[in-house]
Amino acid sequence: MLRHAEIIAIGSELLTPNRLDTNSLFLTERLNSIGIEVELKTIVGDSEERLEQVVREAVKRSSLVIATGGLGPTEDDVTKKVFARVLKRQLVLDDLILDRIKARFRRRGMEMPANNARQALVPVGGQILENPAGTAPGIWMATEGCDVILLPGPPSEMKSMFEDSCMPRLSEMAGGVRLFKQVFKATGITESSLDERIAPIYAKYKNPVTTILTSPGEIQIHLIGRGRSEDEARKIVTELADKIELELGDLIFSRGEENLEQIVGYYLMMREMTLAVAESCTGGLVSQRITSVPGSSSYFLSGVTCYSNRSKIDLAGIPPLVIQMGGAVSAEVAKGLAEGIRTKTGATIGLGITGIAGPAGGTVEKPVGLVHIALSMESSMDHQEFRFVGDRERIRQWASQAALDMVRRKLI
Amino acid sequence: MLRHAEIIAIGSELLTPNRLDTNSLFLTERLNSIGIEVELKTIVGDSEERLEQVVREAVKRSSLVIATGGLGPTEDDVTKKVFARVLKRQLVLDDLILDRIKARFRRRGMEMPANNARQALVPVGGQILENPAGTAPGIWMATEGCDVILLPGPPSEMKSMFEDSCMPRLSEMAGGVRLFKQVFKATGITESSLDERIAPIYAKYKNPVTTILTSPGEIQIHLIGRGRSEDEARKIVTELADKIELELGDLIFSRGEENLEQIVGYYLMMREMTLAVAESCTGGLVSQRITSVPGSSSYFLSGVTCYSNRSKIDLAGIPPLVIQMGGAVSAEVAKGLAEGIRTKTGATIGLGITGIAGPAGGTVEKPVGLVHIALSMESSMDHQEFRFVGDRERIRQWASQAALDMVRRKLI
Repeated sequence: MLRHAEIIAIGSELLTPNRLDTNSLFLTERLNSIGIEVELKTIVGDSEERLEQVVREAVKRSSLVIATGGLGPTEDDVTKKVFARVLKRQLVLDDLILDRIKARFRRRGMEMPANNARQALVPVGGQILENPAGTAPGIWMATEGCDVILLPGPPSEMKSMFEDSCMPRLSEMAGGVRLFKQVFKATGITESSLDERIAPIYAKYKNPVTTILTSPGEIQIHLIGRGRSEDEARKIVTELADKIELELGDLIFSRGEENLEQIVGYYLMMREMTLAVAESCTGGLVSQRITSVPGSSSYFLSGVTCYSNRSKIDLAGIPPLVIQMGGAVSAEVAKGLAEGIRTKTGATIGLGITGIAGPAGGTVEKPVGLVHIALSMESSMDHQEFRFVGDRERIRQWASQAALDMVRRKLI
Repeated sequence: MLRHAEIIAIGSELLTPNRLDTNSLFLTERLNSIGIEVELKTIVGDSEERLEQVVREAVKRSSLVIATGGLGPTEDDVTKKVFARVLKRQLVLDDLILDRIKARFRRRGMEMPANNARQALVPVGGQILENPAGTAPGIWMATEGCDVILLPGPPSEMKSMFEDSCMPRLSEMAGGVRLFKQVFKATGITESSLDERIAPIYAKYKNPVTTILTSPGEIQIHLIGRGRSEDEARKIVTELADKIELELGDLIFSRGEENLEQIVGYYLMMREMTLAVAESCTGGLVSQRITSVPGSSSYFLSGVTCYSNRSKIDLAGIPPLVIQMGGAVSAEVAKGLAEGIRTKTGATIGLGITGIAGPAGGTVEKPVGLVHIALSMESSMDHQEFRFVGDRERIRQWASQAALDMVRRKLI
C-alpha cells in the first residue's frame, strides 16, 4: 500500500534567492487527500551530475518519486535523460507526440523550432501523460519497488496533468485510509478575532486537524479529517464544520474552493442582476477579478478606472463640484462613482471605489490606506469607509476584497 | 576554495501543503554574495531515519552543509543527535550554555523546563554559535572535506546568527570570490526561438552561467559571473551580456528588475505622454497592471472594461454598425476602442484590446485565444492580431503583456 512519496523539483532558478518551488504545495495537498504523506523534498538545479545522485537515492528509498520541471525544449532540460539513465531505459522519439507538438505550433501560425523535438523523447516503457496546456508531455514509469512520475514545471500544466492523469491511479494504489477536507473562506474579520471565536471549538478535536491561513482580506480555515472510508472521514469533518459554520455565520463566504469573485458571480446570475464598477485606487483590479471568472460576461457590463478627475467627471458622470468640495477621496465621490456607472450602463448594481493606495498621496486627514466604497441600486445607496494597512499591493487587494464583499452581502 | 553549498531544512511542518522553507532564500542570497552557490536543497521531516540518510549523502558530496531547524527543546528536535551520529561525535552537556539558558528563563521570571537542557548538548569538537535572539545555540563542525553548520529554524534567530557568526568565516573560506548578476527580460518571442538565437553565443561561456526562465509573455535571461573582485565579475558578465543584447535588440525590454508596466511608465513619463485603455477580454488586467506602479496617476488617465456591446458603444464610442458588421472581436473594434478612449479622455495614446479569453465563446473562424490589439495616436493607428494558447488566465496574461509591449515599442 502506497503511503509515502518524495518530490524532486528541478531547475536552477529554484536555487536562486528569488524563487521557491511552490508546485510541491499543490502536490502535497493532493497526495495528502488520498492518505499519502510527503516525506522528503529535494530541490536541484540543471546539473546532470547532481540530479543523477539525487535520483539514484530517491528511487532506492521511496516507493513514489514525483519530479517537476526540466522537461522543456532547451539544452539544460535534463530530467528525462537523467531518469532514463538511472532506470536504465533508452530514450526514443515518439512520433505521435512530435506530430502533436508540431500541430500546436501550426495552430499559432508558427514552425516548430528544432529544439522542441526533444520534448517528444520518451524512455522505453514510460507511459505518456497528456499535457493539454503545453508542449511537454509528462511520463509515468513503473519499476519494481518504485513508481516515478515526471511532470512539467509550469504550475498550470503540472496541476491539470497531475489531477487528470495521476490522481485516479495513485488513489487506487494508496488504498485504505481516506482523508476528507473542508475549507471555509471568511472575510470581514481579523485573524485573531476569528481565532478567538473558533479556537475553543476546534481545540477539542485532534481529528480533524484545523489549520488557519490568511491573505489580505481573506482567512481560510482548513479542516482535514481521516477515516477508514471517505464517508467516515466526511462525517468526522462535518461534526466540527457545522459548529464552526454556526459560530461564524455570514462571515464565511465560501464552503469550497470558490473565491469571492466566483461567489459574487453566482449570486448575480441567480438573481439575474448585472454589475458595473467605477474604481479609482484599485485601478481595474476589481474589474479584472470579476472578469477572471469564465462566463462573467453574462452579468458584468463594464468597468471604468477613473484615475484622473476628468475621467471621474466624463466617464462616471460625477458633478465637478463634488470633487472640488470633498476631494477625489470622499464618501460623496464613491457614491457618485457608484451611481454614475450604474445609470450610465443600465446595470442593476453600481460599485464605486476611491481611496489612497500609496505610497505617496496621503495626508494626516486622509492617510494612505483610506478607502471609500459605495454600492448603488435603484432604490438604495450603501457606503463604507475603510482604513487598510500595508503597502500599495496589500491595500489594493484589501480594497478589492471589501468591495466584492459589499456586493455579496447585498445579495445574500 | 569553497564554491558550493547545500541546505537542509528540517521540520515536519515544512512538508505540509501550507508551508514552504523560506530560510533558504536568505541563506542563498548571502552565500551568493560571497561567491558560493547553492547546489541542492533538501526538506525533510522530524524522522531520524530519513534525516540520517539525507545527512550521510550531504556530508559525502558537499563541502558545506547548512541545516536549519530541529534545534528546539522537544523530543522531535533530532538535528544534533543525527549529525553527531553521522559525524561520529559524542554529544556532551555544555555547562556554560546550560547556565545561559537557565538565566534566560530567569530573566522572564520562569524556571527552565527540564526539556530545555537538551539544547545545551554539543557534539564534541563543535563550535558554538551564539543565539542572542533565542535559547538554541547554533553549532559549526569542521570535519575533513566538509563544514557543517547547524542553525535554528525561526528566521529571526537564524538570520542574525548566520550573519554575525558565519558570514565572516565563510567569506574567507570562499577566497574573496565575488559574483555579479545581470538579468534581461524579453517579450514578443517564444522561449525556444529565443534560445536558438542566443544558445550559440552563451554556450561558449562557462563563466558566466546562463539561465533562462519563462512566464506567459515574458522570458528572463540570467547571467551570473564570478571573479576575484566585483569589478572582474562585472567585466566577465558584461562581455557576454553585450553580445546577447546585440543579438536580441529591442526584444529586451528590461535590463534589471523592472517589469513591463514599470518600463512603459518610465517611457510615458520621459515623453510626457498620457495613456488610456479600453479593454474587453483582458477585463481590467491592463489597467490594473499599469496602476500597480506607484506614481502611475501622473500618466494613466483612465481605463474602461467594455464587456457588453452597449458599453463598447457608450463608453468607448464605437459606432454600432462596426460591431454589427465585424462582431465584437475584430480589428475594427480594437481600433474603435483605441481611438474612442483616446479622444474621450484626451490621452496621447489610446489602447484597445478585444479577444476571446475562453473557455467558451470560440468558433472555428474566431477561436479561443484570438486577440486584436490596437494603439491609437493623433497621427497614427497600429494594429496587431495574436493567437494565444492556454487557459483563460494565460490568454489574459499574454494579451496584457502584448498590449503593454505595443506601447513600449511605440515609444522607444
